[in-house]
Amino acid sequence: MPTISQKAIQIPVSPIRKLVPYAEEAKKRGTHIYHMNIGQSDVDSPQVALDAVKNNTLKLVEYSHSAGNMSYRLKLAKYYQKLGIHVDENELIVTGSGSEAVLFSIFACANPGDELIVPEPFYANYISMAIYAGAKLVPVPCTIENGFALPPIKEFEKVITPKTKAILISNPGNPTGYVYTREEMESLAGLAKQHDLFLISDEVYREFCYDGVRTVSALELQCVEEHVILVDSVSKRYSACGVRVGAFVTKNKEVYNVAMKFAQARLSPPSYGQIFAEAACDTPQSYFDNINTEYTKRRDIVVNAINKMEGCFCPNPKGAFYVVARLPIDDSDKFCQWLLEKFEHKKQTLMFAPAAGFYSPGSGGGKDQVRISYALNENDLRNAMECLEIALKQYNNR
Amino acid sequence: MPTISQKAIQIPVSPIRKLVPYAEEAKKRGTHIYHMNIGQSDVDSPQVALDAVKNNTLKLVEYSHSAGNMSYRLKLAKYYQKLGIHVDENELIVTGSGSEAVLFSIFACANPGDELIVPEPFYANYISMAIYAGAKLVPVPCTIENGFALPPIKEFEKVITPKTKAILISNPGNPTGYVYTREEMESLAGLAKQHDLFLISDEVYREFCYDGVRTVSALELQCVEEHVILVDSVSKRYSACGVRVGAFVTKNKEVYNVAMKFAQARLSPPSYGQIFAEAACDTPQSYFDNINTEYTKRRDIVVNAINKMEGCFCPNPKGAFYVVARLPIDDSDKFCQWLLEKFEHKKQTLMFAPAAGFYSPGSGGGKDQVRISYALNENDLRNAMECLEIALKQYNNR
Repeated sequence: MPTISQKAIQIPVSPIRKLVPYAEEAKKRGTHIYHMNIGQSDVDSPQVALDAVKNNTLKLVEYSHSAGNMSYRLKLAKYYQKLGIHVDENELIVTGSGSEAVLFSIFACANPGDELIVPEPFYANYISMAIYAGAKLVPVPCTIENGFALPPIKEFEKVITPKTKAILISNPGNPTGYVYTREEMESLAGLAKQHDLFLISDEVYREFCYDGVRTVSALELQCVEEHVILVDSVSKRYSACGVRVGAFVTKNKEVYNVAMKFAQARLSPPSYGQIFAEAACDTPQSYFDNINTEYTKRRDIVVNAINKMEGCFCPNPKGAFYVVARLPIDDSDKFCQWLLEKFEHKKQTLMFAPAAGFYSPGSGGGKDQVRISYALNENDLRNAMECLEIALKQYNNR
Repeated sequence: MPTISQKAIQIPVSPIRKLVPYAEEAKKRGTHIYHMNIGQSDVDSPQVALDAVKNNTLKLVEYSHSAGNMSYRLKLAKYYQKLGIHVDENELIVTGSGSEAVLFSIFACANPGDELIVPEPFYANYISMAIYAGAKLVPVPCTIENGFALPPIKEFEKVITPKTKAILISNPGNPTGYVYTREEMESLAGLAKQHDLFLISDEVYREFCYDGVRTVSALELQCVEEHVILVDSVSKRYSACGVRVGAFVTKNKEVYNVAMKFAQARLSPPSYGQIFAEAACDTPQSYFDNINTEYTKRRDIVVNAINKMEGCFCPNPKGAFYVVARLPIDDSDKFCQWLLEKFEHKKQTLMFAPAAGFYSPGSGGGKDQVRISYALNENDLRNAMECLEIALKQYNNR
């Protein structure tokens, strides 16, 4: 038999994937699962975008330009300009997802063996993307006690080596929901400049910002534009994860040109997705205002409920639709499996993402933490929190 | 300034990309270009598939399963079964293009430094995909004189080393249009089995087969199923390159499982594209029959015309919608640029793919060859061939 590659073997199966068979069994038993493990909002996609696809007049679904349709790039550039991100249509590449933009970013900067510094916990799929490129993720630990704020810059400086090529952040953070302040962003920019590093900034949750906070984009920062690669996606912004349209944005011409080589190698991003995304640029502000109001309420329900439970702690993050909570448990992988395999309350149970998947493999980080997605309606969230309280008591008395 | 990666630098810019600015200039001058450089059929996509997207009822465009929607996988499995390819819905992964399936294939089998044997000329983007994985393409030269048929197996055996991991073919061939016979496929299978290699078979042009020939899929072959990875796409079959839906198919469970890790890392294939592709499974046979009749005529026009031109030679391939022709020119890169930059006949000119892009970079192969796509209507093809004849005379007398 031919043998498979080492890279393929190295890519870890995320803890959440390991739970899927248990979730399927629970469903077969008729147990309702509150899916607080997911990264997909339950809010409808904007009508204007749904309609654009339904009303499309394509007869022949041709390749688009490898950088995306010009009509969409022009509108996307305007969207950024309104946010104070001064890019034009030739400084962005429409990708077939935010994931693809991450992959292009890592391939553009990292040789095999090179290092990417990433505040930990971090988005789990960065691990796979780094393995693809033969690059190494070097974590800088954040702490739950201060809400997963940016660690002091000296902690980054400690791990910089001649192999360090980039700092990779997600902002607002997945899984933490933390939104970096302007000061934090500027200190990262200063570090990137001083040490000649790329700053890869994954801002796919940009619009999910609460309590009057707004996301400061890495591309808004002065004097560091040539260092910044912005990763973006329509998945979260327009509640359209299945559309598979993202963006790779940079003002660095050399990086842009190599990313175009990657883009050309896969020919083009999806045409229907681009029709959706172009129309979605006309989504009324009320759509986002409603989401903001709704998600603020949801976050408050979850954060308040968890912090009232014995032995639990949860920061109050300003962004995304996740919290990472510390629970009085021995091992979140086991706990999450137990929830699906052994527990039910009123024929209901819960599915969370064990936080270990967001820490370096083998580090043991996140063992008493779970990522909780609050992309459920208020009523479901209240029931889910009731379930959690009961589950924790049963789990520790089992 | 931070420095970009070596991989990014290594990926060659294809000769065809270098022509684009000249094509744009020609258009600005008002010259009509016969685009015989493209890999996109001009035939409309199937109405049943176009309608399915227009009539979709999605309100929330969610992630699909990482392996693709089950409803589509079931229909796709049936499509294969009808062809004598006995796979089920759990042996295929819906990908975000044939390109993605190629990438998954190479990542699944090749470690950095490993070698993939590929009959030459080959699909240009295999070069980029191999560079991504740090793998090396090892060409086995085919000759235009025998129509780019499979070279004798001993030529493959000569280049097998301990680093060889796979044989990578496209069948029907891009750029050659050559369709491997059952005997050729069986000899490749025997080689893969004997030397414990994967056989990666890119069959995206399967339906484009003429003169009563049919494509023999690598997955139809006996006793070698565990070695085969089939790369597929809806792009050519349904004239829908912009849909971005392909497939990775294998009966090797270990390979399937690692490809699923790649699939999970990018979350899901496009939802609208899957709606299109699922409905396209119901395309009536008449659609393919019409294409077959039309493309046979087109191929005959081009092949006959070229073989009548002085100093030109072109095989008569049985598949895809390309021919590789040998022209009496010094350098096809220069000739193709000259066509766009300097030549016109009745305000018309031609765009071809210089064949050098389909040979190993730096090998000098294909210098007097071009890939000609005959995805144009008959009238345009006749005019284009008239242009070519005049252009060749002028080029050599300039």
